[in-house]
Amino acid sequence: MKAHIVTVGDEILLGSTLNTNAAYIGEKMSEIEINVGGASVAPDKIDEIVGEYRRVWKKADVVFSTGGLGPTHDDRTREAVVDFFGCQLVGDKDVMEDIKERFDRLNRPLAKINEDQAMVPDCAEPIRNKRGTAPGYWIERDGKIFVAMPGVPHEMREMMETFVLPRLKERVGESAAHTKRLTLLTTGIGESNLYDKLGDIDEISEGGELAFLPTLGGVRIRITAVGETDKEADEKLQAVEQRIRGKAGRFIFGKDDETLAEVVGRLLKDRDLELAVAESCTGGLLSSMLTDFGGASDFYERGVVSYSNASKVEILHVNEDDLNAEGAVSQTTAKQMAEGVKAVSAADVGLAITGIMGPTAGGSDKPVGLVYVAVADDDGVTVKAFNFGDDRRQNKVRAATAALDMLRRVILGISIDA
Amino acid sequence: MKAHIVTVGDEILLGSTLNTNAAYIGEKMSEIEINVGGASVAPDKIDEIVGEYRRVWKKADVVFSTGGLGPTHDDRTREAVVDFFGCQLVGDKDVMEDIKERFDRLNRPLAKINEDQAMVPDCAEPIRNKRGTAPGYWIERDGKIFVAMPGVPHEMREMMETFVLPRLKERVGESAAHTKRLTLLTTGIGESNLYDKLGDIDEISEGGELAFLPTLGGVRIRITAVGETDKEADEKLQAVEQRIRGKAGRFIFGKDDETLAEVVGRLLKDRDLELAVAESCTGGLLSSMLTDFGGASDFYERGVVSYSNASKVEILHVNEDDLNAEGAVSQTTAKQMAEGVKAVSAADVGLAITGIMGPTAGGSDKPVGLVYVAVADDDGVTVKAFNFGDDRRQNKVRAATAALDMLRRVILGISIDA
Repeated sequence: MKAHIVTVGDEILLGSTLNTNAAYIGEKMSEIEINVGGASVAPDKIDEIVGEYRRVWKKADVVFSTGGLGPTHDDRTREAVVDFFGCQLVGDKDVMEDIKERFDRLNRPLAKINEDQAMVPDCAEPIRNKRGTAPGYWIERDGKIFVAMPGVPHEMREMMETFVLPRLKERVGESAAHTKRLTLLTTGIGESNLYDKLGDIDEISEGGELAFLPTLGGVRIRITAVGETDKEADEKLQAVEQRIRGKAGRFIFGKDDETLAEVVGRLLKDRDLELAVAESCTGGLLSSMLTDFGGASDFYERGVVSYSNASKVEILHVNEDDLNAEGAVSQTTAKQMAEGVKAVSAADVGLAITGIMGPTAGGSDKPVGLVYVAVADDDGVTVKAFNFGDDRRQNKVRAATAALDMLRRVILGISIDA
Repeated sequence: MKAHIVTVGDEILLGSTLNTNAAYIGEKMSEIEINVGGASVAPDKIDEIVGEYRRVWKKADVVFSTGGLGPTHDDRTREAVVDFFGCQLVGDKDVMEDIKERFDRLNRPLAKINEDQAMVPDCAEPIRNKRGTAPGYWIERDGKIFVAMPGVPHEMREMMETFVLPRLKERVGESAAHTKRLTLLTTGIGESNLYDKLGDIDEISEGGELAFLPTLGGVRIRITAVGETDKEADEKLQAVEQRIRGKAGRFIFGKDDETLAEVVGRLLKDRDLELAVAESCTGGLLSSMLTDFGGASDFYERGVVSYSNASKVEILHVNEDDLNAEGAVSQTTAKQMAEGVKAVSAADVGLAITGIMGPTAGGSDKPVGLVYVAVADDDGVTVKAFNFGDDRRQNKVRAATAALDMLRRVILGISIDA
């Protein structure tokens, strides 16, 4: 089965909204072995939306449309659906009930425009919306499937999970090709050096296919393998994975949609280690990454965003003379921050970052992008210097990533040198 | 002039990478009055890429292609360009020099596959890459422009800023339609209630067009106005803006690509106020948002991520008996956290968040999504309770956003009730 994703919305073309919906649907399709052959974006104009439906309906077995179903005048998808399928709007009792209940529950007055949302194309089976007011549509015609959903991500996702995906899974059934995919996540090495390190790519990828995806946090290696059975595909995948690990194992921190923070959190939890964080230039990002997952309180004890020098001295007990002599961005300060936060929290590990994020050096004679990371544990302190670029937000992510990877290596006993 | 953006890459269709490049190009085109009529994604297959170039070349005056120019075997864009334009690869001295210099500077060995990147289609003017190795291409034919750039965002952006945008601006010159756009950013009110509050939309939007864009942090209202001159378009825009502000002013925190954190930071800085933050459930996100911009140290003094109860007592001096009696997620704890962080830091304002982010309540009998925010200043403390949903990461963003908006309202003397 082949799918195409149409995203409706000027805000996507204008770049004011990222197309996270197409990414989410693409990911879900790959999980159930439906091949997304293409994706496109249509502006908020009925003719353009209908034109796009017409074009992709010829190419795909399943067409997804997201966006443009809201209650306001700039939402044109419902009209486009009515036009494309040649059907009519009728009031739907269940949808009206859902809308009323929702407003009752939130104790909000029912807006007039919401009542109109209970009008649904009669060629469609409405997909009820548990997180908002606009229903989605499921339409089958000519042996093909058309699914329209609202553009608000959490509304769309709920419809996918409870209604669309279960139905599509049934249709795919046993007919699917046995394709398996796995993404190995690396950090701390650039794309071409990683490629070189792997050596002969044909040999490494034998039985599968490789793709290299550079991101800010590291290079991802996607392996795809096809087999007559799931088992055969899995075995091919694992053989490629093992060969890659043999060449570049220490750079690989995880798989698929894991994050480095999640992996590090698990390493700490498994070893029953408590972590305390002291960060200045990353401004809380490192702590935020570590607490993005349920159960973070099992390993994350506290964090200090020691932005001012006073806070470094008062909370982390950094030595004031050293701080004045060597500066806030120095090996000594990083070391004392890690030791300090470990001591005051009585945690097993202290992790610290100090650096210059840019865009300017703020009076320092040290270069923008200079960052020190320190890990303190019961065996002592390890400090390392990094040199990143001149983009502040990128540097925050790079520095937090480098700190997490350094902690990962210290825990696993891997050398912290490249 | 009309543009179309083609993004090349299986990783976009598979949903493992967000299409930030298309968003960036869309935004830049709207700034120079080039209308992006559509956007699409092609898989890493030469035929599919060429097919997509063929289709959109008919519709657009400028075609952008990003991705697939890297050094590895899964990068197929260069071949597709050669095929589509019927040209040949030739070695480019300047590009070779750039690549050598780059590897010398980074003190890294030149990988063999990088040398091949100096081979460029002879129908193209190479766009030199200051942040990576793959050059981009600028091709003019049939009065149209074709631009190919690498998919790595910071490489692509640098090429856009230094090469592509200056050239396109020249071409657009005086011929552009006088279209002006403005996005008003609201928070703390839902889409349909905001729509209702505005009343008669035709009256409000007279002389312009409105679009409503709901996001996790709030609803954005985009206004578009067209005039015979820039001045006329601007005047129409401002008239619509004023009418919207008259109806829903207190929900509007900013414009265009401002963030709420940036706005709050500016409010603090303008009033010479220092801020200290104490957060538990948001795990550092609030501090990270506040420090995403250069100059944050002018208003941000320190932050404490008081995840454990011990850290609330030790660093923030929350009363241990109250904490045990009322729990970490309570009005009293929020209040004492805000007062505590203000006192220990000697900052002018203390901002605190405590809540239950989910997915589970972690032993508490309070509901997932319950969050207390407190603002302490020299006039006293204000506390407010919020009820969010059950998605942990969304709740982190919602809670941090609610805290920033509460601080904004307190500073500006706007009621904290909806």
